Amino acid sequence: MVTLAENRYGKSRVRLVRVKRHSDRHDLHEWTVQVLLQGDYESCFADGDNSKILPTDTMKNMVYSLARSSPAACIEDFAKELSSFLLERNAQVASAEVSIRETSWDHLQISARPHPTTFVQSSGEVQTTMVTQCPGSVPKIVSGLDNLVILKTAGSAFAGYIKDSLTTLPETRDRLFGTAVRANWTYVAPDLSFHQLRPQIRELLLAAFAEHQSKSVQHTLYAMAQRVLDKVSEVKDLHLTMPNKHCLLVDLSGFGQDNPNEIFVPTDEPHGFIEARVTRE
Amino acid sequence: MVTLAENRYGKSRVRLVRVKRHSDRHDLHEWTVQVLLQGDYESCFADGDNSKILPTDTMKNMVYSLARSSPAACIEDFAKELSSFLLERNAQVASAEVSIRETSWDHLQISARPHPTTFVQSSGEVQTTMVTQCPGSVPKIVSGLDNLVILKTAGSAFAGYIKDSLTTLPETRDRLFGTAVRANWTYVAPDLSFHQLRPQIRELLLAAFAEHQSKSVQHTLYAMAQRVLDKVSEVKDLHLTMPNKHCLLVDLSGFGQDNPNEIFVPTDEPHGFIEARVTRE
Amino acid sequence: MVTLAENRYGKSRVRLVRVKRHSDRHDLHEWTVQVLLQGDYESCFADGDNSKILPTDTMKNMVYSLARSSPAACIEDFAKELSSFLLERNAQVASAEVSIRETSWDHLQISARPHPTTFVQSSGEVQTTMVTQCPGSVPKIVSGLDNLVILKTAGSAFAGYIKDSLTTLPETRDRLFGTAVRANWTYVAPDLSFHQLRPQIRELLLAAFAEHQSKSVQHTLYAMAQRVLDKVSEVKDLHLTMPNKHCLLVDLSGFGQDNPNEIFVPTDEPHGFIEARVTRE
Amino acid sequence: MVTLAENRYGKSRVRLVRVKRHSDRHDLHEWTVQVLLQGDYESCFADGDNSKILPTDTMKNMVYSLARSSPAACIEDFAKELSSFLLERNAQVASAEVSIRETSWDHLQISARPHPTTFVQSSGEVQTTMVTQCPGSVPKIVSGLDNLVILKTAGSAFAGYIKDSLTTLPETRDRLFGTAVRANWTYVAPDLSFHQLRPQIRELLLAAFAEHQSKSVQHTLYAMAQRVLDKVSEVKDLHLTMPNKHCLLVDLSGFGQDNPNEIFVPTDEPHGFIEARVTRE
Repeated sequence: MVTLAENRYGKSRVRLVRVKRHSDRHDLHEWTVQVLLQGDYESCFADGDNSKILPTDTMKNMVYSLARSSPAACIEDFAKELSSFLLERNAQVASAEVSIRETSWDHLQISARPHPTTFVQSSGEVQTTMVTQCPGSVPKIVSGLDNLVILKTAGSAFAGYIKDSLTTLPETRDRLFGTAVRANWTYVAPDLSFHQLRPQIRELLLAAFAEHQSKSVQHTLYAMAQRVLDKVSEVKDLHLTMPNKHCLLVDLSGFGQDNPNEIFVPTDEPHGFIEARVTRE
Repeated sequence: MVTLAENRYGKSRVRLVRVKRHSDRHDLHEWTVQVLLQGDYESCFADGDNSKILPTDTMKNMVYSLARSSPAACIEDFAKELSSFLLERNAQVASAEVSIRETSWDHLQISARPHPTTFVQSSGEVQTTMVTQCPGSVPKIVSGLDNLVILKTAGSAFAGYIKDSLTTLPETRDRLFGTAVRANWTYVAPDLSFHQLRPQIRELLLAAFAEHQSKSVQHTLYAMAQRVLDKVSEVKDLHLTMPNKHCLLVDLSGFGQDNPNEIFVPTDEPHGFIEARVTRE
Repeated sequence: MVTLAENRYGKSRVRLVRVKRHSDRHDLHEWTVQVLLQGDYESCFADGDNSKILPTDTMKNMVYSLARSSPAACIEDFAKELSSFLLERNAQVASAEVSIRETSWDHLQISARPHPTTFVQSSGEVQTTMVTQCPGSVPKIVSGLDNLVILKTAGSAFAGYIKDSLTTLPETRDRLFGTAVRANWTYVAPDLSFHQLRPQIRELLLAAFAEHQSKSVQHTLYAMAQRVLDKVSEVKDLHLTMPNKHCLLVDLSGFGQDNPNEIFVPTDEPHGFIEARVTRE
Repeated sequence: MVTLAENRYGKSRVRLVRVKRHSDRHDLHEWTVQVLLQGDYESCFADGDNSKILPTDTMKNMVYSLARSSPAACIEDFAKELSSFLLERNAQVASAEVSIRETSWDHLQISARPHPTTFVQSSGEVQTTMVTQCPGSVPKIVSGLDNLVILKTAGSAFAGYIKDSLTTLPETRDRLFGTAVRANWTYVAPDLSFHQLRPQIRELLLAAFAEHQSKSVQHTLYAMAQRVLDKVSEVKDLHLTMPNKHCLLVDLSGFGQDNPNEIFVPTDEPHGFIEARVTRE
């Protein structure tokens, strides 16, 4: 006999552009929404009984309909509203998870002034949130960012590590340190001023990365997390993923040239992978 | 005060082609290896103490060196060998996880016969394994496949679901059902004949998909898992992810044409997402 | 004063799945269509006069409507039909170009027999055609394939090339030779049996690749083109693009190991790039 | 008999990071270089005679070696230097084409000030150049940009186009107009101040896009080209590719809601495709 252990279903990649038309300017947001539900769906899986299934197509409609009526100005508020709306109308759902990824759009700068109705996709960086909620309980909010590609050309060493018969890496006191940060932080409460907290947390992460005297990726990752937890009491813990996007120093000695940390080959593979969750004690 | 909650580090995307040169033919395998370690690395993160860090560059060297000396013929055996090798030499490691993805290469067929030394990348499907091991204990083997893109044009319905004010999807007794399967199954023991079990499991998944009278993606997913668990006692549980890659029937009525389930628009977004783990009771 | 030199416009990525329902089996085709038009559109560009513009949205509708009514069984025939249809209805068009890419779908094999209504996306290889037509003239048909990923482990050398102060590559008599072929061939006439010619041409390309004693990518590319032109009189010329997807022999000597052409690192970048058009004299 | 009609070969995706270490700050550039050669290579293709082949591996070395010794500060100057260097040393080459794509890196802003040694990948936009040169002649410089993703929420209409039996698109006086611009402009001479011209041209393109009362993509594309040609005498002609990345207004009427140009679905496929070359009369 077999049995259903865990299950989730929902709709992914529901894309949405929302334009707010003010008299002096427009606001533009692009969100990609995912809705996932959990519950007692044993009969759906085992017997093909669809009577408890809210179609994923309806979830998509729900996203668009709510986007029109919602006053939410940031992804956290919209995700909360969406998960509450969904739970109220669907008693069969034990847990709803709403994830939103916001694409970066800025007003275009022309002659150093923002144009009111023209926008440029400013970066590959994405702002994220995930709201998880069970009926009758407060939602859990985990916000973050993804694909924040940064690199420092000073203040990064890697030495003192284990050497064995398979070691070929030379120690270095001065290397390039490049990464694509994915960060997720858990908020202590569901009703904070997310719109203000986000840029503050982002700036702390970046400042710590820039200012840290790095002895390893691990060392800097921890310093970044510590900086946020020290300064932002609204954050309970922080998960960081920081692949080491290696830049290899090119050996030019065969051509009679030196290379004083100037010419590097950036590589996509293989890459180091470092992740950790840092929390308050 | 902050503290390190969890951490992992290692090397990703270590790519490897291995050629075995037999007198009558060559064998070719392409593997992409990832090695991740866990352990008590608090001092590395908090203090920049690298004395317990095995560089990820050394992990990469280990993969290549072991690939040369290893007799392993399948990804499961190589992953086990690699994790054991790593743990033996690194007492500081509490847990090692080795993941391998195998790219599909087949002997090229010419005039319906396999050419002995020429290969074609036969599919975007990938064969996978993940071996997790702690010092002194038996490894856990989870094998699988990814990006198995399949579609059935008969035997798929979707009806009887919840209708509400946001429902627009019409019920259907005859739809296209396309998906890209990711499957992961846990083996009951670490020393099985993985090379023989894999094609057997894959064939059972595919046969169940083809033969099932589907009432929903959930319904068919469960049937596929059940088929494997019923027939292969070496599998303990099975996790399946099956996005619903929708093919939408085109409305041609405005052009005076009917469309008797013949012309569809395949779409990448949004898509349904269904996943479940099925296990023995 | 400025002037419009050349212009093209149309619709890209019109995706289409077509199912033909026979009594004993279904046929499935997935096509991605692009339609591009040229003509005297100076007033559209310079003055915003849209009176000669067929909207690209209408082109999309045309693809779906024609897919329903067309008897065409291969991409060449459908592309011809579409370009003729378009030109007949749009006197303002000076030239139409219809390109189609066909995704690989095969009947799923179960117990070594094809299942009548279940399909598997068999490969990342794509079959292509481009039909170009002016009003009142015969269409030009260029068919091809893309992303045919192949690799040979024998019969490939590279030596005797130019050496200078920047040379570091060692000569080799036995290397791996991997590539992703893009081929385009021009047919001598617009009304051939394209469905039969395509597999014949593809097999000739593959056989030549497998059997050739290669002295360079250029050398093998030419042999492949020559094989087709020698055997298929319906082909006028052939354009081949064959990136050299390098597999680098791993140096294991530092670990006390040899590596007799067995362990390689496949790399995506940088890569060699070789292309040529070969024609009849 | 068959013959070689055209051929090109070289190295693609040679990636390079260059760091200039000034006392008060570092400069960082990431370039991806492609080198392609043409010439009389008939004997290489037909006979496997490699005596005239400069290995693509040597081209890669040339890029790194020259990057170390070159004073070039912009991609145009480096590409010119590379093509000259190559032609001087390789008499067998009839034409060299060097293309460079520059990834966007900016100094990280912390507390509104640029950090001297920390960088952020600021955008998916790429700056490009292609230098083509024959021995003894002046190089041709075509510079450009790619993947400049922009969107305007006002000043865009589409009406007055052809209607026929396949038309379903409604006319609109107020739509979203989003695109990903690829621009290539030909300079009148090979020794201009490219570093100053590039931001000037880019700003003109963007200002024209923002300010234009658009009647179609074609109409705006032309206005953008015209703006550059009117203001920058150093540019001879301009080629623009502007896919129409449609944002579709969501129909919410079924849910009892209006949608006054506020909620849209951005789509990747299908998409309109418009390109033109505009030149001086």
